[in-house]
This record gives sequence, structure tokens and C-alpha cells, in this order.
Amino acid sequence: MQHTEITELLKTEPSLHEITVKGWVRAFRSNRFIALNDGSTIKNLQCVVDFENFEEETLKKINVGAAIEVSGVLVESQGKGQAVEVQVSKITILGEADPEDVKLTILSPKRHSLETLREQAHLRVRTNTFGAVMRTRSKLAFAVHEYFQKNGFNYMHSPIITGSDAEGAGEMFRVSNLDPKKPPLDDEGKIDYKQDFFGKETNLTVSGQLEGETYAMGLGKIYTFGPTFRAENSNTSRHLAEFWMIEPEMAFCDLDGNMDLAEDFIKYIIKYALEHCADDLEFLENRLLQVEKTKPQAERSEMALREKMKFVLENNFKRVTYTEAIEILKNSKPNKKKKFKYIIDEWGADLQSEHERFLVEKHFKCPVILFDYPAKIKAFYMRLNDDGKTVRAMDVLFPGIGEIVGGSQREERYDVLKEKMESMGIDEKELWWYLELRKFGTCVHSGFGLGFERMVQFVTGMGNIRDVIPYPRTPGNAEF
Amino acid sequence: MQHTEITELLKTEPSLHEITVKGWVRAFRSNRFIALNDGSTIKNLQCVVDFENFEEETLKKINVGAAIEVSGVLVESQGKGQAVEVQVSKITILGEADPEDVKLTILSPKRHSLETLREQAHLRVRTNTFGAVMRTRSKLAFAVHEYFQKNGFNYMHSPIITGSDAEGAGEMFRVSNLDPKKPPLDDEGKIDYKQDFFGKETNLTVSGQLEGETYAMGLGKIYTFGPTFRAENSNTSRHLAEFWMIEPEMAFCDLDGNMDLAEDFIKYIIKYALEHCADDLEFLENRLLQVEKTKPQAERSEMALREKMKFVLENNFKRVTYTEAIEILKNSKPNKKKKFKYIIDEWGADLQSEHERFLVEKHFKCPVILFDYPAKIKAFYMRLNDDGKTVRAMDVLFPGIGEIVGGSQREERYDVLKEKMESMGIDEKELWWYLELRKFGTCVHSGFGLGFERMVQFVTGMGNIRDVIPYPRTPGNAEF
Repeated sequence: MQHTEITELLKTEPSLHEITVKGWVRAFRSNRFIALNDGSTIKNLQCVVDFENFEEETLKKINVGAAIEVSGVLVESQGKGQAVEVQVSKITILGEADPEDVKLTILSPKRHSLETLREQAHLRVRTNTFGAVMRTRSKLAFAVHEYFQKNGFNYMHSPIITGSDAEGAGEMFRVSNLDPKKPPLDDEGKIDYKQDFFGKETNLTVSGQLEGETYAMGLGKIYTFGPTFRAENSNTSRHLAEFWMIEPEMAFCDLDGNMDLAEDFIKYIIKYALEHCADDLEFLENRLLQVEKTKPQAERSEMALREKMKFVLENNFKRVTYTEAIEILKNSKPNKKKKFKYIIDEWGADLQSEHERFLVEKHFKCPVILFDYPAKIKAFYMRLNDDGKTVRAMDVLFPGIGEIVGGSQREERYDVLKEKMESMGIDEKELWWYLELRKFGTCVHSGFGLGFERMVQFVTGMGNIRDVIPYPRTPGNAEF
Repeated sequence: MQHTEITELLKTEPSLHEITVKGWVRAFRSNRFIALNDGSTIKNLQCVVDFENFEEETLKKINVGAAIEVSGVLVESQGKGQAVEVQVSKITILGEADPEDVKLTILSPKRHSLETLREQAHLRVRTNTFGAVMRTRSKLAFAVHEYFQKNGFNYMHSPIITGSDAEGAGEMFRVSNLDPKKPPLDDEGKIDYKQDFFGKETNLTVSGQLEGETYAMGLGKIYTFGPTFRAENSNTSRHLAEFWMIEPEMAFCDLDGNMDLAEDFIKYIIKYALEHCADDLEFLENRLLQVEKTKPQAERSEMALREKMKFVLENNFKRVTYTEAIEILKNSKPNKKKKFKYIIDEWGADLQSEHERFLVEKHFKCPVILFDYPAKIKAFYMRLNDDGKTVRAMDVLFPGIGEIVGGSQREERYDVLKEKMESMGIDEKELWWYLELRKFGTCVHSGFGLGFERMVQFVTGMGNIRDVIPYPRTPGNAEF
């Protein structure tokens, strides 16, 4: 029999037609009120049961977590909290749930720690919090595609298995099919990767940028949106070994255009979430308020979740050169009073997250785009400025999150790039194709990368990055 | 200076305002007509140069592949083939291209083999064929997202690095960070994966289905769209080691609903391509006609590219049980005359591509959904029918492509699944979480997988799967 989704029913006018819904029991109060959820919305459908009309056997099985089918008439609700409810005429138990099973306690209204839920990552999506986070994640992902497609960008699937290391640094995961215990060796006693599946040593990509550039030089504007990997042993609330990255790349675009795109793009997807995830964001906002109450006053956010989102929409991102930022930081109170862990005393220092937070949260009090960084602390492919010491790099810094976007105008001059690669020890033989882009119709071009999970964190207010991806991969953890 | 994209300009009425475009030279005829392309469309913009107004030095650099900036007035075209053209007042050479460079010959109008272009995968996107294929691929990918989002599905990022093998078969790529030459061993002399990055042996996923099911049991309806991997040594025009897969999964949905979804979904994205890729498909259709002319009459397709697409839209997919199909095949001419390589003589035989093609192309002459396959030739998670010997599996077969979708209703009964896993040697300890879905509120649910590249092949008419993904990964090849 056809069933209707709860999100649809809740928008429907009461009528005398019989409807059928299927979902999981979230609560069963007073042997009378079933709160039913089918995942289509955070809201439950209230199903009113006249217990005299049902077998004891059936009622006993209406436990939290059970899957049931309910038929009845949709009527105006007598109680508060919902416009409509179902007067139940028929109940079918589809899948039972043992009320004594300890696993199911995570579905009970009692609050459980996020750590506990992480161990049951296959079940946590059935809770209000993770349902809301994952629906919002889905909407945000769609907003990414919609934005770029509307603006004439082509979605490009950059390769996951790769023989090259985009950043020239970044620890990578090895992908191999050789005998893991006794790999074949060559004449020099080194592992003979010629015998491996791809005939060479391969790794999981850390970025699709370099391949993205090749496509921008043909299609004009492209974006990637795919998984990227870091084999870094960072057990923090900000790092994952596997995460999703968005990387647009534009031919005939300089750093100013790149900044414009980043700001416009970020605002678009935040606006989209506000408009399309209202119920989930309301829940997550309240959740965050509860969480913050347990923190000392000083650590609490000044703004509620959606206030923060609107704040980003309503303010221009402040654009500041690295050199200006260093001056501000040098003269700042925390620097003078040695409150920073890393004291800023000279131009060229790499900025730490404490410095970024100071600039964004205390000094400018709005999202900030820092640009024109020292060449020495940035990647080889960034365009050298005429001063010979800074490059056309940019980082977008967000309150509470820190760096959310990193990008640059790319070095489009063959000779300059070649020299830079040599001086930074990047193997030309490996990136011959990347260099060739500068040989055949080169042009000014720019792009950036946005870590998708960081954005989901900002929008959902989740403090730990492991709680915004279905199955987080971190050191020591690849369960499920 | 702001520039306009060619796809916009071609839709613009002629006017006296000066415009600026940037792009790559596709041709320069008679020292007068530049065909300029910026990737935004397959169409070139005709830029008319009065050579007396320009330096010889500049004109000499207008070679195929060079990046240039052109300013001028958009006027009604005097020539055939375009409505508007630019009367050029200014030309800036942005990036030269050496006309003598052998690499650039792939951009010349002369036809090059697809094999040659594959070796220059960083440049091939600048050709008409690959530009058209990759723009179409992008549009198709967006159609996938739009379809599912419109229909209430949540996009779920299933994990790429995984400790479990979804198919219970499928060769996988190992992901590791251990010393490749001297991995640490445990007391038994086996590799000690406890010391590896994730504390266990990990591989690249072959499917996101099992994790997808966990999310369908919370969110109701989900889909994945991400890379999947097969370490199979198949050097064919149909296989990639890395490819993108789409896997929807629905709670409270049986095999009939699953077939409905597959058919509706496929028709949606094909229709989307017809509506949004008109210029590119026109080019690809003509290209295919040229290619087919070189083939013997018998191997040519009866329909042109877009005709085939429309044919799929206009016909119901024929739903046929495996048992019916076997009867048809047994009694078919090629079987009786032993023209099949694998003769069908009894129920239970696995169908080969020759049989699938016969059913689709000769017998039914339309897309076919085969369902209710023998349990023995299908995966452990498919729901057993009451006959005890068939499972609720389905394959969608397409003319010219063969299997494009494989799916099933999933075994939702704990005991049946457990027994099946045991008998098929699937490790229960590894998939404890998958089994648990059947313990807590289990329900009828179904889903399928569609290999995205196969769909791109169908829509673009490209015969080799390596030509529909930017950087194909195949045995012996992970360049770029």
C-alpha cells in the first residue's frame, strides 16, 4: 500500500480520507500518543491510539525504535505542538525493537554524549541531532552544485588515485595491490612499483586543484567536489583523514575575482540553508544554546546559530593584506602582553589560529579575507607579486571556525613556475603536464578550496568535525 | 577589465557597445577570421580582424591554442553559420602557443585518434569532442542531484576508505601507511595492521550501499554519488579501476517501487541532458555518425544519438523475470544455432552480455528490467523470495550498453540474513552494524547502483569508458 511522507502530511489540510504512514517510533506516551518519525523531517507525526481498539500484543510492540505502519484519518490536532494528527484505525508492526536493548537507549530522549553516539554511527542518524545535521549537510551539498551550475561552472571529477602530490607536501595514503608482506623488489633493492596495479607508486589525492586547472584551461570555469585525504596523525576536533573538498578554478580570473567568487559562493550556500533547513536549524540552534549554557560565560558565543549565519550574509568580508594584518597583530594587546602563544615580532611569520581568531573575532568582528602572503610560507603554484616576496594567496577566515577557504591566483608564467618548482624541490618530471599548461595558451587563472565539513560545522553549530560526516575516518578509526 | 562569456554573447542582440572576450584561438583563417572559444559553449565566436589595423607582430601570434583577449563591437554576422560576430578593435596576446609544437597538433582540425588524445588527457578537454563530453557529464551529474533532491532524498557521503567489503567479493585496493618494504609483523608473523594508520586493514570502497542502508533506516531516503574502486585487471572499453557510482536507498520500498524509481530517474536525467546540452549533443551526434560510417553496416546503430535517448524516454521499460528470460533465450535462434558463445541450457545460468544484448536489442527492442534472479548468482544481502531459490534482484539493461543499473530489495529479516552470511562466508564480526539494522526497527527497503560513466557513455555516444572521465584509472595507468 502507498504511504505518505510525514513532511508532506504535516503540510496537508485535515480531511476524511484515510492515509497511511510508515516510520519509526520515537515515543509512545500514556498508551495513547505515538510520536512517529520517518526521517523526511525532524518533526514527528502524532498518532493517536484508542487502546481499546487494539490487541495488547500489538501495543506492547510499539517501543522506541520499532518500525510501524499506521493507517487512519488526518484530523486537526486537539493538543498543542502540532496542527494535525492521525486518528489511528490500524497499526502494523514492521520491525520490532527490544526496549531492553542497551543500544536503543541512544534513541531515548535522555541526552547522550556525542562520543557515545559516535561509537554507534550506524544508529546515530536516527537521533534528532544527527538527523538534522545530515539533512542540512545534504542541502548544503546541493546548494554547492546549484550555485556553480547556475554560474556556468562545469562539475569536474578529479582523480582520487593519483601519482602526484598536489601540495608538494601533505602526508598521503599509499594505494597498492602488491603483496603487502613481500613486495617485489627491483635491481637496486627498492620496491618495484612497476609491478603494481598502475605500474607506478600511487596515493590518495590531497587536492584536485592541479587537475582542475587543466580543465579550467579548456572549459573556462570548473569546480570539483569530491573526497580528499590527509594521512596526518592529528587527533583533533578539526581534522579528518577523509573529507570532502570543493575546488572551483577559473580561467581569465585574477585574485580580486577569486575573492568575489568566494564571498558570493559562501553567502549563497548559507542563504540556501537558512531558506531550506528552517526546522532543522531551529532545532540545532536550541541544541547549541543548551550546550553553551554548560560553558563558562567567556566561551559562549555572542550570537545564536542563525544570527551568526545572517551576520555573514549581511556583512562584506573585510579584505586585508598579510602585511597589514601583521602590523595589527604586532600592536595588539595580546601580543604586547604576551598572551599569544606565538608572539608576532616580524614580517614573514606564519599565522596561527590564535592570530586568525583575534583578527576575525576581536579586531574586525566580521569574516576576513587575508591576502598577499609571504611566498616562503605558501605553495609553489601561487603567483609571485612584483615585489618578489609575496604571492597572490588568500585565506577566508570565519568566526569560530578559522580558515574556511584557502586559494590563490596561480603562477601562469612558465619560467617563473619552473624556477619556483626547482627551488622548492617539486619534481618536474612528475608534473610535466602541469607545467605544459603554461606553454600552450597560458592565462591568468585562480581558484580556491573550501573544506566542506568546516562549512557544515559552521551552519549546524557542531563543535567536532567527526559529527558532521556520516562515518568519520581518523587515526585509529575506520569502523563501519 | 570585465569580459563576457561567449555563450552569453551568442545570445545577445548586436549593439554598438564595446565588448571584451577572452578565450583560446581555434582557427585563424585568411589573416581575417579568428574562431575563438572560451569553453563556455562548443560554439566559437567569430572575430573579424582588419589586418591593416594591427601589428604584424601581433597577428603572427594568433595561432591555434593561443590565449587572447579581444575587444570590439558585436555586429550582425555577414557570413553563414553564426548570427553575430565581433568587429575587432583591439587584440591582446595573453598566452602564446608555438604553432610548431607537436603537442598542439591535437588541437588542429585534423582528426586524431582517441588513443592519442588519451595520452594528452590534460589537453584533450580543449578539443570539440572532449569539451562536449565533459560539459555533458557535468550537466548529467547535476541532473542526478536535482532529481533526488526534488524527490526528498538526502545526499549521503558514504566512506571511501573502509574496513569492510560490501560485495563480499570484488577485488579491492589496499590503503596503508605502513612501511611498504618492511611492514611490522605480529607474533604470528602476519602483518600487524594494528600499527597502521586506522589500526586495521583498510581498502578503497567498492560500493557505498551497506552504509547507505544505515542512513536510509534513519533518514528514509538517501542517495550516494561518489567514487568507487575495483582492482580488477580488466583492460576493456567498459571497465575503470576508479569510477563514480550513484546509489539510492529507500526505506519502506519494495522491488516494484525500486524499479519505478530506476525508470523514472533514468528518464529524468536523459531528458535533462536533451534539454540542457543541445549544442553539445548535436555535435556528438554528428561525430558518432562519422564514426559509424567507418563500421560495417551490421554494426551501425539503427538510431542516431538523440533518437536513442528519446526512444528511452518514450518507452516503458519491459519488466521480465529471469525465469521468463531464460525461456526466451533457450528458444532463441542464436541459442539453437549455437551462435551464442555461452549456450543457455538450464535455469540458473548467469547471463552474459551477449544474452543481455539479444534480449534488449533483438527480442524486446527496448530497455529491459530483469528481476527475480537465482539466489546463487547474486549477493548475500538480496531478499530471498518465498520460492527459496530466487532473490528480489533487478538489472536494468540498455541497448548498446548492457547492464546500466543493478539493484535489489534487501533482506530485512535478521535470521535469514544471518544464515545467508554464514553460508556465503561473510564475516559477521566485520558487518555487525549491518546485521543490527535488522534488529532495531527493521523494514522492507530497496536500492540500486548506477555506474555514472556508463550513463555518460549512453548520452554522449562515446564507445570507450576512458573517454568519458577526465583522468581514467586503468591497469598500468595513473598518469596525471
